[in-house]
Amino acid sequence: MAVSESWEAIAARKQQERDSKIPPQWRIPTSLLPKPDVLDVHDFPKTSGFFTDRELLVTESTASTAVSKIASGEWSALEVTEAVCKRAAVAQQLLNCITEIYFEEAIARAKELDEIFKRDGKTIGPLHGLPISLKDQFNIKGLDSTIGYVSYAEKPATSDSTLVTVLVQAGAILYVKTNVPATLMMGESVNNVFGRTKNPRNRELTSGGSSGGESCLVSFRGSFMGVGTDIGGSIRHPSSFTGLTAMRPSHGRVSYQNAVNTYLGQEAVRSCAGPMCRSVSDIRLFMSAVASQTPWLLDPQTLPIPWRSDDEKLPEKLCFGFGMGDGTVMPTPPLMRAMELTKAKLIAAGHSFIDFIPSEHIEAADIISKMWEADSGEEFQRDTDVSGEPLHPQLESWLGHTAEVEKQSVFDTWQNQHKRALLAQRWLEKWQATASETGTGRPIDGLIMPSTPFPAPRHDAGYPHHWGALSPLLDLTTGVFPVTQVNLKKDVIPADWKPISDTDEKVWKYYGKPENHENALVGLTVIGRRLEEEKVTAMLDVINKAVGIDY
Amino acid sequence: MAVSESWEAIAARKQQERDSKIPPQWRIPTSLLPKPDVLDVHDFPKTSGFFTDRELLVTESTASTAVSKIASGEWSALEVTEAVCKRAAVAQQLLNCITEIYFEEAIARAKELDEIFKRDGKTIGPLHGLPISLKDQFNIKGLDSTIGYVSYAEKPATSDSTLVTVLVQAGAILYVKTNVPATLMMGESVNNVFGRTKNPRNRELTSGGSSGGESCLVSFRGSFMGVGTDIGGSIRHPSSFTGLTAMRPSHGRVSYQNAVNTYLGQEAVRSCAGPMCRSVSDIRLFMSAVASQTPWLLDPQTLPIPWRSDDEKLPEKLCFGFGMGDGTVMPTPPLMRAMELTKAKLIAAGHSFIDFIPSEHIEAADIISKMWEADSGEEFQRDTDVSGEPLHPQLESWLGHTAEVEKQSVFDTWQNQHKRALLAQRWLEKWQATASETGTGRPIDGLIMPSTPFPAPRHDAGYPHHWGALSPLLDLTTGVFPVTQVNLKKDVIPADWKPISDTDEKVWKYYGKPENHENALVGLTVIGRRLEEEKVTAMLDVINKAVGIDY
Repeated sequence: MAVSESWEAIAARKQQERDSKIPPQWRIPTSLLPKPDVLDVHDFPKTSGFFTDRELLVTESTASTAVSKIASGEWSALEVTEAVCKRAAVAQQLLNCITEIYFEEAIARAKELDEIFKRDGKTIGPLHGLPISLKDQFNIKGLDSTIGYVSYAEKPATSDSTLVTVLVQAGAILYVKTNVPATLMMGESVNNVFGRTKNPRNRELTSGGSSGGESCLVSFRGSFMGVGTDIGGSIRHPSSFTGLTAMRPSHGRVSYQNAVNTYLGQEAVRSCAGPMCRSVSDIRLFMSAVASQTPWLLDPQTLPIPWRSDDEKLPEKLCFGFGMGDGTVMPTPPLMRAMELTKAKLIAAGHSFIDFIPSEHIEAADIISKMWEADSGEEFQRDTDVSGEPLHPQLESWLGHTAEVEKQSVFDTWQNQHKRALLAQRWLEKWQATASETGTGRPIDGLIMPSTPFPAPRHDAGYPHHWGALSPLLDLTTGVFPVTQVNLKKDVIPADWKPISDTDEKVWKYYGKPENHENALVGLTVIGRRLEEEKVTAMLDVINKAVGIDY
Repeated sequence: MAVSESWEAIAARKQQERDSKIPPQWRIPTSLLPKPDVLDVHDFPKTSGFFTDRELLVTESTASTAVSKIASGEWSALEVTEAVCKRAAVAQQLLNCITEIYFEEAIARAKELDEIFKRDGKTIGPLHGLPISLKDQFNIKGLDSTIGYVSYAEKPATSDSTLVTVLVQAGAILYVKTNVPATLMMGESVNNVFGRTKNPRNRELTSGGSSGGESCLVSFRGSFMGVGTDIGGSIRHPSSFTGLTAMRPSHGRVSYQNAVNTYLGQEAVRSCAGPMCRSVSDIRLFMSAVASQTPWLLDPQTLPIPWRSDDEKLPEKLCFGFGMGDGTVMPTPPLMRAMELTKAKLIAAGHSFIDFIPSEHIEAADIISKMWEADSGEEFQRDTDVSGEPLHPQLESWLGHTAEVEKQSVFDTWQNQHKRALLAQRWLEKWQATASETGTGRPIDGLIMPSTPFPAPRHDAGYPHHWGALSPLLDLTTGVFPVTQVNLKKDVIPADWKPISDTDEKVWKYYGKPENHENALVGLTVIGRRLEEEKVTAMLDVINKAVGIDY
């Protein structure tokens, strides 16, 4: 075997190649470039003077506005695409959120779509002319999908992911792919190929993971909407950390076929793809557009369920479960404040709450961890050994060569799966049983709870605890909505605080003080039953109208 | 530990207990009892004089007729239940198809339902008063669910299976559970607890497995309809062998929660519960009745998909795939004749065919076998070791202590599952690609093929080859319909026959001559896409009208 290139050389070439695809006119002039100690850069596009008013107008719009203006002929796909590509290029320079740049092709496609529109007088589909960003797992023919592994670099995809086909069919324009942690199994987006993605509100904080490139880019308005994936919080945590409206759908609503993934062939707990947006109407736009393309005729793992608009019709008064922690860990001050604020505003809007502590989370976390660890790290180790790159310390200590992971037999995995089946049944029974308490005659409509006990943490801090397990383990449709921002005055740990458990103590000490998370946006989740994407979208609407943050 | 009882003693007691639940008036008088060398006993109820005309009228009816006559007040639930229980009791005495008898409770429930109907002037649900039989996997509180294991005997269920709850809610009456092979993983229904179930048309033949107690009982008209399960042919083979109309739905349409099963916790390939009936309208009745109870609010593994009547509306002219074998094995003469006959009659009715050889079956069988063998027989061995009973020789040589089964790692199972994902995608692509050949503008509407290359075999013969793998592995909705009966003149192997492969030679020699399968009924399957239960039901209607067997 020939002497192979160092992983550092490959990574340097990948980054260099990516950076070369930013056209000179979109490179930030040195005079405008924020100094490294400027931590909050989210407003750079508005304050720097580097963008025209028109570019700002376009990129600050929602996806729904953009497609409607393109469909009415008011905006061209080209101007929208150019504005978004420019803002994405700037995001990349400030925050390092992009892995693959596809601007040239995007602009060519925008021109084509404008021609078609001009010729036919109508759009080709519900996403006509809309640039959509993709997490680096989705294959675009000719581009890499490294998921952060050096050994996956420079092996361009030979065909598109089915979701890519579906989006393009619906009129979307592909223009960038976004950063992740290598292995996808970490709560922040850093890897040896592309480095670290930062939070637009505070560059010392993470934008989360594994869909942290997306959360950064969409939050910065370098994308109208992006596609993330979530097997343990990977859409929910980053979206909560950056003020996004997002959805982790149940398995089978959004195609995942022919995407690059970790744990290839693992099916005990499924990662799901879902939209990360800046408005509820954009969630609806994405989900209904995808369903309108009958993806189940392309991907046998997609369920033949159209977008059921009828299920979006909600009763006037809803009753939510109030999930303030899991019984062993409490949300830290900003999250607790977000919970109380949401409750108060929804009650003011005529809705009601009952306490609903998801204590099942503890068992869920145990079961899901066994699923993630079922190959004892065989894949993580193999895919880093090829290039010689190190695993991130958080991953190395968990599933690396030096970690001590219990070997599982196939029979062990069956027992673990059976435990999940029993837990899923208990969860549904508990949920349905609330019908006697809600006063609406129905069980709770949704469960509102944080996805992590803390706001966006500092880089490399790790997560001492999080609430990502239940939704993927039980395949529950889960929406994410923005609520507030860390407040230096309000979010101080009270002097009389007492931890409720050892883990709680660990989590609150880890949170420390609001200054550790300065400027971070704070979101929450609303959990529905399985395959309730329409109802959860409608609930996001209700919540958004009541809570009404405009970050 | 105390000296434990022999497995033979436990089995004898179980059989004795079951037999004691047949009331004296339903025991066949010795004078009427067919001699052991009378092989075809299916007509005993009509020819023996042991049944009244009214009992024959009721039991020869379909389930749809029965529920409609009960709902109109023309028949009482009580008379229907008594007639069916009596016929089931006779089936048991002639064919040994029943494991648990629940006549007393059934009759009490029928009286209750009649009272309710009298009081309210309406039924409690779409199955009001209809006796339904269940494969011995489904739990009825207070009864055993042994699935043929001695070690499971005398451990009564402490709660009902969710499907049982759903059926009872819809008005059904439980009255018997039916025989299976121990482990459920064999093509005939024989075990150490209850012994062997026989085919009503020829007691030297099997009624198939693992839902062979059901196929025997429903075919004998000791049941209007029963619930079987299928992970590799266990609804399809027995139904084909006994002239039934049946369905193996996709996973998630019929609840399987809290049922006893083999491979507990194994989820790579799913067993599915489905109806085994004597008419297409009964398939529709069962499937729509189950969906009408919103089972997804009880069982989180059930999909929230109502019965979609709109999907039953078919185009006037259908095009079917013609699956004459898998490319390596041809159907033996009776199956080949059934295929040609079905084709000719459907063409005469205005439909069309294109050849569609499911050569993917070969890889499917390999993948599914690895899934079934993933624990190297750990469970089979453990659950027989407890009582000391032997595994059936077919199971012992496959997964017993003396078998040599390759140990699989968790990573191996992931690779195998990934192969399945790729196969599922290729299958769907091949299916969709037929749109260019069918002449209808659509892909084939269904694929017609046999589920086994041979008709009901003799006891203990084993299956040298079968086509059970594709539907469960790819989760394809599959209907079964009766076509013909083995014909001693027409089904002789031609003198100029040449095998197309070694397996083909083995299969045809195993078939041998029609006399080996005398009187066996012959059915075929129609395979749809995933989750097309409504469309497949409608296709069964079309096929039934054209092929029109009345066995």
